[in-house]
Amino acid sequence: MVEAPAYPKLAGLRCAVLGAGGFLGGALAAALCDRGAVVRGYGRLANPDARDERIAWSNAEFSDASSLASVLDGQQAVFHCIGSSLPATSNGDPAGALLDDVYGTLKLLDLCVASGVTKVVFASSGGTVYGVPPRVPTPESAPTNPISAYGINKLVVEKYLALYRRLHGLDYRVLRIANPYGPGQSPLRPQGVVASMVRAALTGAAVEIWGTGEVTRDFLYVDDVVDALLRSAEYDGPERIFNVGSGVGRTVNDLLAAVQDAFGGAPFAVVRKPARIADVPVSVLDATLARRALGWEPKTGLREGILQTAAWMRGALTDFQVPLS
Amino acid sequence: MVEAPAYPKLAGLRCAVLGAGGFLGGALAAALCDRGAVVRGYGRLANPDARDERIAWSNAEFSDASSLASVLDGQQAVFHCIGSSLPATSNGDPAGALLDDVYGTLKLLDLCVASGVTKVVFASSGGTVYGVPPRVPTPESAPTNPISAYGINKLVVEKYLALYRRLHGLDYRVLRIANPYGPGQSPLRPQGVVASMVRAALTGAAVEIWGTGEVTRDFLYVDDVVDALLRSAEYDGPERIFNVGSGVGRTVNDLLAAVQDAFGGAPFAVVRKPARIADVPVSVLDATLARRALGWEPKTGLREGILQTAAWMRGALTDFQVPLS
Repeated sequence: MVEAPAYPKLAGLRCAVLGAGGFLGGALAAALCDRGAVVRGYGRLANPDARDERIAWSNAEFSDASSLASVLDGQQAVFHCIGSSLPATSNGDPAGALLDDVYGTLKLLDLCVASGVTKVVFASSGGTVYGVPPRVPTPESAPTNPISAYGINKLVVEKYLALYRRLHGLDYRVLRIANPYGPGQSPLRPQGVVASMVRAALTGAAVEIWGTGEVTRDFLYVDDVVDALLRSAEYDGPERIFNVGSGVGRTVNDLLAAVQDAFGGAPFAVVRKPARIADVPVSVLDATLARRALGWEPKTGLREGILQTAAWMRGALTDFQVPLS
Repeated sequence: MVEAPAYPKLAGLRCAVLGAGGFLGGALAAALCDRGAVVRGYGRLANPDARDERIAWSNAEFSDASSLASVLDGQQAVFHCIGSSLPATSNGDPAGALLDDVYGTLKLLDLCVASGVTKVVFASSGGTVYGVPPRVPTPESAPTNPISAYGINKLVVEKYLALYRRLHGLDYRVLRIANPYGPGQSPLRPQGVVASMVRAALTGAAVEIWGTGEVTRDFLYVDDVVDALLRSAEYDGPERIFNVGSGVGRTVNDLLAAVQDAFGGAPFAVVRKPARIADVPVSVLDATLARRALGWEPKTGLREGILQTAAWMRGALTDFQVPLS
């Protein structure tokens, strides 16, 4: 049994969450506030009405160095959850994705060093940094040969984090996160097949599936991802790169069946699209290290997670500025 | 025995050598001309008087996209030997090094795709992409954890070459080159300890040595490097990343003794400087794959290479615009 987390170091922690207006960053920022951290949020806020009042918010672009510098001033830790590009679209403009995601992050790291930030927690991507994995579940030591600019850029940031630690003593943790889903994930963005399917179940909209649906993924509920992020911020041992996944592979077709089942079994419309070249055929993470070093363990099963997502989305339907159906 | 190379595919090959004004690029461009290739040179030409008349030359910056596009037009192959940053200095401005070396190369690859170039041969760095190697001689499959921005950026370009092949069919070969030395290497640049020592032997100048001199490197004569580049351009098998090194590790102190010995044993002045954080303690490459797949084998021993370097430098002393002593 893994004990309930205590997070003693988070109370009073002065930290910035970059990407706090997004799915993971938003959930993380709220969880940090729950634990007594003093949180500054940074990035684009999609829905200003949904803003968490406990968070001091800076609505600015990642490339805005002076805004970023003022937010970092006095912080102890930085959670970097900004990703400007997406796996499927990054390949259309790798040079642009490099500027947004890597160059921007190097400028961030320079500012962290100048500001005296002591630790960076980086949301990397377990589904893309390995590329087509030689085996699953995939451990952290597997070769890293991404097949998208998105995945390459996540990997490059990991390499630079190690360099900045060596050069400047800026400590870091990298979480290679599997496919997160859950409350807060917009069903209207191109990432998030669970959100897309739950929306379909609620509204009657069709689900888009790329390829045969036999692509296999490791779906992880957002609260479990957030727990890993919090634990990695607490952790001060020697490990720095952690897979964060359930270890269970499910095809998109499996997922479709699970969502249908959670909604009572009625099938919904599917639009089949061509397979995407940036999609690896299979991604399942071996999170043994996170279990051992962080005491982390995923707690929310897929069916429960789908139901939680549905409960949230019902409530959120009217809050979205873009119509959901 | 490895047979003498025939290079049947190089005759008539239309190719661009980026960095043809530099040490490796210059030697490569001349060798390509010797084999009947039709060569365009691109980059900075340090010494216009030394220009090879067989090469159509474009004296332009790597970042000059319109010049680069016009040079790539109609080419079959591109040899990418431009490196704007250096291992020791890249860590002072990683974001700048990223822009120069990675962003610039992505723009190059986009132009290659648009121009119909079919193959890119990239001069990567066997001495930096592995970082502190877990074992020596180091094979291509070893972990890649560079300790300089220079090394990270070489690695990133390798990853993007694989991506562009996948996305656009642009083929490539990567040569992870050990520490090259020989005729053409300026003793006045911060890279090139052999050139620096030979200069000291010829002029009485002091040699700068960083740290204890026990840093171990894999020195490889320029003609052997060029032979590997030519063979990789010929090769059309399945391998894409090759170590190119002698497999012999020598400390800088060993090298100093070898240079002194080649010059008759007279010691020369040494200025000891602090160790540099970007210097890995040891780098020796396992080039088994290049031997097997390319039929490549280094031919020039260290003593002979030092003497050839000295012969060239004596002749070149008056050609340098900056005084050598």
